[in-house]
Amino acid sequence: MASCAIVLLAAIALLIQVNAKEWRAGAHHHHLITRMQSPRRGAALPLALKEGFAYTEHYFQQTLDHFNVGNITLFPQRYLLHNASWSGGASGAPIFVYCGNEGDIVWFAENTGFMFDIAPLFGALLVFPEHRFYGKSQPFGGQNGPKELAFCSAEQALADFATLILDLKRNLSAQASPVVVFGGSYGGMLAAWFRLKYPHIAIGALASSAPILQFENIVPYTTYYDIVSNAFKREGEECFEIIRNSWTAITEAAEQQNGLRNLSQDFHMCSDFKNADELINWLESAYSYLAMANYPYAANFTMPLPAYPVRKVCQAMVNSPVASSILQRIYAGVNVYYNFTGAAKCFDLDDDPHGLSGWNWQSCTEMVMPMSSNSSTSMYPPFEWDGEAWSRFCWEKYGAIPRPSWVTTEFGGHDIKSALRNFGSNIVFSNGLLDPWSGGSVLESISSTILAFVTKEGAHHLDFRWSRKDDPQWLIEQRELEVREIKRWLSEYHSLHRQNVFVI
Amino acid sequence: MASCAIVLLAAIALLIQVNAKEWRAGAHHHHLITRMQSPRRGAALPLALKEGFAYTEHYFQQTLDHFNVGNITLFPQRYLLHNASWSGGASGAPIFVYCGNEGDIVWFAENTGFMFDIAPLFGALLVFPEHRFYGKSQPFGGQNGPKELAFCSAEQALADFATLILDLKRNLSAQASPVVVFGGSYGGMLAAWFRLKYPHIAIGALASSAPILQFENIVPYTTYYDIVSNAFKREGEECFEIIRNSWTAITEAAEQQNGLRNLSQDFHMCSDFKNADELINWLESAYSYLAMANYPYAANFTMPLPAYPVRKVCQAMVNSPVASSILQRIYAGVNVYYNFTGAAKCFDLDDDPHGLSGWNWQSCTEMVMPMSSNSSTSMYPPFEWDGEAWSRFCWEKYGAIPRPSWVTTEFGGHDIKSALRNFGSNIVFSNGLLDPWSGGSVLESISSTILAFVTKEGAHHLDFRWSRKDDPQWLIEQRELEVREIKRWLSEYHSLHRQNVFVI
Repeated sequence: MASCAIVLLAAIALLIQVNAKEWRAGAHHHHLITRMQSPRRGAALPLALKEGFAYTEHYFQQTLDHFNVGNITLFPQRYLLHNASWSGGASGAPIFVYCGNEGDIVWFAENTGFMFDIAPLFGALLVFPEHRFYGKSQPFGGQNGPKELAFCSAEQALADFATLILDLKRNLSAQASPVVVFGGSYGGMLAAWFRLKYPHIAIGALASSAPILQFENIVPYTTYYDIVSNAFKREGEECFEIIRNSWTAITEAAEQQNGLRNLSQDFHMCSDFKNADELINWLESAYSYLAMANYPYAANFTMPLPAYPVRKVCQAMVNSPVASSILQRIYAGVNVYYNFTGAAKCFDLDDDPHGLSGWNWQSCTEMVMPMSSNSSTSMYPPFEWDGEAWSRFCWEKYGAIPRPSWVTTEFGGHDIKSALRNFGSNIVFSNGLLDPWSGGSVLESISSTILAFVTKEGAHHLDFRWSRKDDPQWLIEQRELEVREIKRWLSEYHSLHRQNVFVI
Repeated sequence: MASCAIVLLAAIALLIQVNAKEWRAGAHHHHLITRMQSPRRGAALPLALKEGFAYTEHYFQQTLDHFNVGNITLFPQRYLLHNASWSGGASGAPIFVYCGNEGDIVWFAENTGFMFDIAPLFGALLVFPEHRFYGKSQPFGGQNGPKELAFCSAEQALADFATLILDLKRNLSAQASPVVVFGGSYGGMLAAWFRLKYPHIAIGALASSAPILQFENIVPYTTYYDIVSNAFKREGEECFEIIRNSWTAITEAAEQQNGLRNLSQDFHMCSDFKNADELINWLESAYSYLAMANYPYAANFTMPLPAYPVRKVCQAMVNSPVASSILQRIYAGVNVYYNFTGAAKCFDLDDDPHGLSGWNWQSCTEMVMPMSSNSSTSMYPPFEWDGEAWSRFCWEKYGAIPRPSWVTTEFGGHDIKSALRNFGSNIVFSNGLLDPWSGGSVLESISSTILAFVTKEGAHHLDFRWSRKDDPQWLIEQRELEVREIKRWLSEYHSLHRQNVFVI
């Protein structure tokens, strides 16, 4: 059955993208994660993210079902603590909580250096609760079918955070410590929703690259793939055209005698493709991740990549020897993504032998993010979102019927500007426009306290990464704005309490 | 098994009070509702509340489990519509939704004439969705054990309202119609929580007599019974003392030979008391309801009662013949409550032969409202809230362990002023200080848009009753303030939309 840990290596985009296409391609369960020969991360993690950034690992006896109080089952939820900077509960120093998303929480902590960087400024305690059904937070030991995954939802995850935070505050005698929530990607959605749903627990939320509007028809279905395409187009029309023309070339090559075998060899696969869609999906995933991780310096988010990786990929494609075929150019490009370190001798498609996974379930139930690809604006093969086909797929896979309207019913999204103009406060939506997820995010400020910080050159939750000497000025400024907002929230909180606002 | 419909006749207070004492008195399942000889309401209800106030009855295929999207079960949820005043969706005329609480929705509609009275002012459509597991909204046909009641919670009820409202707006082509939610008592709690949790669906909430702070230790445990006691004390120290001294008299009388039989005859019971607690609980309930229904005119909320019924009860007690015993005085008083019409030849304790009931379940799971009675300030027999005993009781009855911290985790309550000072908007908490539930309600305004309207002489959601020629001036003014607020919310909404606030 399912092992959500598989998802560890995959970011939200890939899963959604793959999910949205599994039924289209008829290739279920392909997560299309390429395994490097040497594992990216060892099994036994040292309890430090890097020199000087230690954390401790804990488990909380969490309520399995917050919404059925008759269910008294508990499960161990993992969370990480970093208290090196904390000034302690008595001082009213804040608690910064990262809203764990669809993967191992250690991975998210590693990629959220921002919180470690700013903790000393605030004397803050850092808490990283893991999302249920991911990493080591397995209510059923990782053996997950639909019956178990029934408890895997954003609402339960948010209630986990609420319950854990209040318990921690009691145990640490930190009732006077205000809580600020952080999150990136799906974790950013959770952070924003947490502030909206649990304002009595978190005084503010910093939601980075949080596509809370990527539901129903709030944004155009094509926005995600259009932004990926634009990331390539800005490196030159030629790069865009090579990719756009490659799909037909692949299909035609696959149809030749020994076509799949030849393609597999050309692309240095460890074993042969079963169909052309396997290759197409593998490439689509690479482009999607490249756009997300299009950072201004070499980094390791889902893969070790060079600075401005989309540019490097395009350069490799365009600057291939003049006589190169379109497929040779594509290989030259994608090799930058899948094999930047040069360590891979051949590539594997990870077939997820464990079957189900947490995000597959979530996208088959509440996290239905419709996406299409439009031939006039996209370098991707054109396809139309088909909600009914998605329903059929989910029904066959889980006996579940997706509820595409549920997220907007529960959390809103339509007409968000007028809904939140005079309601709510203290949320920052930060986005980089290179990030394909920015299209489904909040890109304009809603009020004087629900703010959008947008950078033209930023990619997927770049602001949450560790600060570096070579950070561009616009990134430094974005982070300064974020720190200023957090300071404002804290100052507002302490001012209310100094005014002796009575506890009714 | 359970029939939640039994609860129809009981308001929240009685149930909580009885629940809080069931284990204390050792007398489980006694709802202590007195049946009149002629049923208060016939089985076949005409589809009009009174002349000119017609409604239609509908059923919506509602989602059984909003928080487990894998569960695809639906159930028919009843709702009432009153569209005589509606100007229609195209005009952007508002929709007023009453958040159904723990009983038959028709009963609540009957007791919420305010909405009918003001509908023409706004051209509003009125919608009264019934709370799941009450009235005719029975997911399991009324056969409810713990397994079925697992789906009976405030969170599910709120999600029902959200889902139904959005569906109705679609079906009525009323997307441009702003929604305002109303509610009284537990329904008022739901209305306030709905505005806080679903601001994208309701632009404002009018929460009358909504004790959202009656949880954990936010307000003193004794507040409820102290307010009941004060309602009697303000009619004269003598009345208060008669009642305060009656408990010992009852216990002593019961201990005499044939004591219970004599007490049963003295109190005109149709059958004998089994123990003194039955009589004590029966009286306690009467006083509690009298305080709630201490309206300035004759009314029929839980019982037909005269104007200022507490005064009438006290007068009957105090003005009994000089030689009257304390128990004769008590009987004279309570007869005003249980038999104002004079129709009852004898009184029955309703023993709830169906066993479980929706509110019993809710108070054994999430709606844990601790209450005590303090001998120095209360006319009630002293008792201390004992959370552990309550847990044992609920465990034995349902196999459920109450979560007394859950409501404050999910909805807040502690330090509400600072939590909501800069968060949220457009909620009116209206209360009358004669109402024992006012002690657990919000009695001070939190911000310029989260307001408390308090009347000194008001009782339990008096403002929600039909307007009358003999309404006191302060009540007329309270309702005017409420109408003014609703107008402000609507005007703000239309102004935002006129400003062309973009739909992202």
